[in-house]
Amino acid sequence: MLNVAIVGPGLVGGALIEQLVAHAQSSRFTTLPISVVGLINSKKMALSATSFSAASLGQWQTAILGDSAQPADMDWFANGLAGLKGATAVVDCTSSDVIAALYPKWLSWGLHVVTPNKKAFSSDLPLFQEIKQLSSSPRGPSVYHEATVGAGLPVLSTLNDLVRTGDQIIKIEGIFSGTLSYLFNNFSSPDATQTFSACVAEAKANGYTEPDPRDDLNGMDVARKVTILGRVAGLEIGIDTLPVENIVPESLRTVSTADEFMTRLPEFDSHFSDLNAKALQAQSVLRYVGFVDGVDGNSSVKLARYPLDHPFASLKGSDNIIAFTTKRFPNPLIVQGAGAGAAVTAFGVFSDLVKISERFGCTSSVDSSKF
Amino acid sequence: MLNVAIVGPGLVGGALIEQLVAHAQSSRFTTLPISVVGLINSKKMALSATSFSAASLGQWQTAILGDSAQPADMDWFANGLAGLKGATAVVDCTSSDVIAALYPKWLSWGLHVVTPNKKAFSSDLPLFQEIKQLSSSPRGPSVYHEATVGAGLPVLSTLNDLVRTGDQIIKIEGIFSGTLSYLFNNFSSPDATQTFSACVAEAKANGYTEPDPRDDLNGMDVARKVTILGRVAGLEIGIDTLPVENIVPESLRTVSTADEFMTRLPEFDSHFSDLNAKALQAQSVLRYVGFVDGVDGNSSVKLARYPLDHPFASLKGSDNIIAFTTKRFPNPLIVQGAGAGAAVTAFGVFSDLVKISERFGCTSSVDSSKF
Repeated sequence: MLNVAIVGPGLVGGALIEQLVAHAQSSRFTTLPISVVGLINSKKMALSATSFSAASLGQWQTAILGDSAQPADMDWFANGLAGLKGATAVVDCTSSDVIAALYPKWLSWGLHVVTPNKKAFSSDLPLFQEIKQLSSSPRGPSVYHEATVGAGLPVLSTLNDLVRTGDQIIKIEGIFSGTLSYLFNNFSSPDATQTFSACVAEAKANGYTEPDPRDDLNGMDVARKVTILGRVAGLEIGIDTLPVENIVPESLRTVSTADEFMTRLPEFDSHFSDLNAKALQAQSVLRYVGFVDGVDGNSSVKLARYPLDHPFASLKGSDNIIAFTTKRFPNPLIVQGAGAGAAVTAFGVFSDLVKISERFGCTSSVDSSKF
Repeated sequence: MLNVAIVGPGLVGGALIEQLVAHAQSSRFTTLPISVVGLINSKKMALSATSFSAASLGQWQTAILGDSAQPADMDWFANGLAGLKGATAVVDCTSSDVIAALYPKWLSWGLHVVTPNKKAFSSDLPLFQEIKQLSSSPRGPSVYHEATVGAGLPVLSTLNDLVRTGDQIIKIEGIFSGTLSYLFNNFSSPDATQTFSACVAEAKANGYTEPDPRDDLNGMDVARKVTILGRVAGLEIGIDTLPVENIVPESLRTVSTADEFMTRLPEFDSHFSDLNAKALQAQSVLRYVGFVDGVDGNSSVKLARYPLDHPFASLKGSDNIIAFTTKRFPNPLIVQGAGAGAAVTAFGVFSDLVKISERFGCTSSVDSSKF
């Protein structure tokens, strides 16, 4: 059994629990060697020496982390996990850099780490390198973070396969933000009619943006993903030195509320319409992309033009798309699909857990009503 | 160390050896825990208790399988491999069903199997089931065959991740033949001008078809890939009962030579032009696709129409494209890129070997001049 503990079960952690419970309760599947033994959020925690039942896990908010649960104590929790028999993985479902900073300690205690949290892999290079070093032994603790880029899409696993087998990465280019994908797929196409501010307002109303859309438009989320891809490709990319095009109009960067930003954004519609018209005149569309340069080190995050017959131009909805151009794939290897959302992010985490259980030879128990 | 033996080194096996040697000789990489210990073709064989040097492996045709090598004896060879210490993988680079039928024996001797050979997974269901059964134990011998569909593209690994984590496969749809991709990308597009027979002649001249193009146009290669995908998805697809649209005109199926076929194919240009004109009138193009139906069991291989803004319509060159529609990915997860060719097929095999070495905790030796 692979023991699993979930830190910060919320949207993604909740979806993961749902998928694990559904798997355990379906007769279509053989039992997975995965056993949920711990949950912790900012207030409460629960740790079991064996495993939670599928029934209580299905009601985890009340049955496991309800009022009667112990007050949260992260150190006590991780210590308890490290004392369990067999392989144990901590799933960090937070987006906290404070939690990310704990990975080295967890790894040194022999715990595996699985996470969609980008912080540890896209912040200071020393933290990334320490984590990489601590997880480099073939039989030692491992770190899997597929869902940090493109959620459950096979992005980092593909990049890892290319790198580990000695392919040469020429460039990685992609649309890595579901929000910015949606915005520019709607705003910039030959038959689009909406103004840029109307597209942003619609995306916000549909819940596709951060509460303050400037947190999407500033490109920092894409920059983190480019940093992760570059580092996995073996480049020393620093998020502080990566050129990132912030498409929030300069005078709106300092307005204090999201509401004020939204009210004033229409003042800049002509600016975006001009860019769009020029792109369309050149039989192209605008797309907000991240770019890892494996040859000259000119990685960047920017608004760029793509011809109408380019795969980036025909993207729909809020899909991500990632193109790997390598020595073996001079015409790029492309992965495309939903790159955000709780279910597909949880799928990425779930796949990582299955890989760890396989790699460390975990076998399943016979009782399928338990995890 | 993972011991590796290559059966039938030719184009793909040769490319694999080249990639392994390049990896070993590059200072960019840490040494892989992979050691080539055996080579066998239809005439000669060589088996080493330790490993071949990178130098001799670079010249394997003369240095290892040259005149002085032993005569080939597959049973003696596999027996010798089974006697080696540590994990050992046999890489079958043939397309032989005779070799494929040996997998159960190899597995029962504890050998792992890695292969781009489709036969074992797309022929009789009992052979597939026996192989699946023999490779089902978490710590026992394993079978990896990523390169049987889409060469090195992450197709089977992605499908496996979806299936193992309990996603529901609604359909898998794709262009799985590089040859038929090339043919219809050129023949059926709004600005195409060539006749169908001219497209086939050009593809043949460029080496993109089998010596007899009817072996591509009959759809059997695509049918094998659909069978593999369906079976990995948990469906009981039989290659004999799968509806396959053979687009070789009926009266040309029995002509005896490829030359005669090519000479007479222009008689049918109007048939294909009509189909194409009707598709284009409907703002669509023709594509030859494989289709796995995860819901109603209506899997098939056929010539189908796709609207101009569909990702299949904008495919270029001889790329493959595969779209997975699942419960979690109602808008499909798409993988696209070169799905044929020695280097990318060898990459698929190489990735599988790395996965086995990782899964079975193989560690590398210190001497990087050796495998």
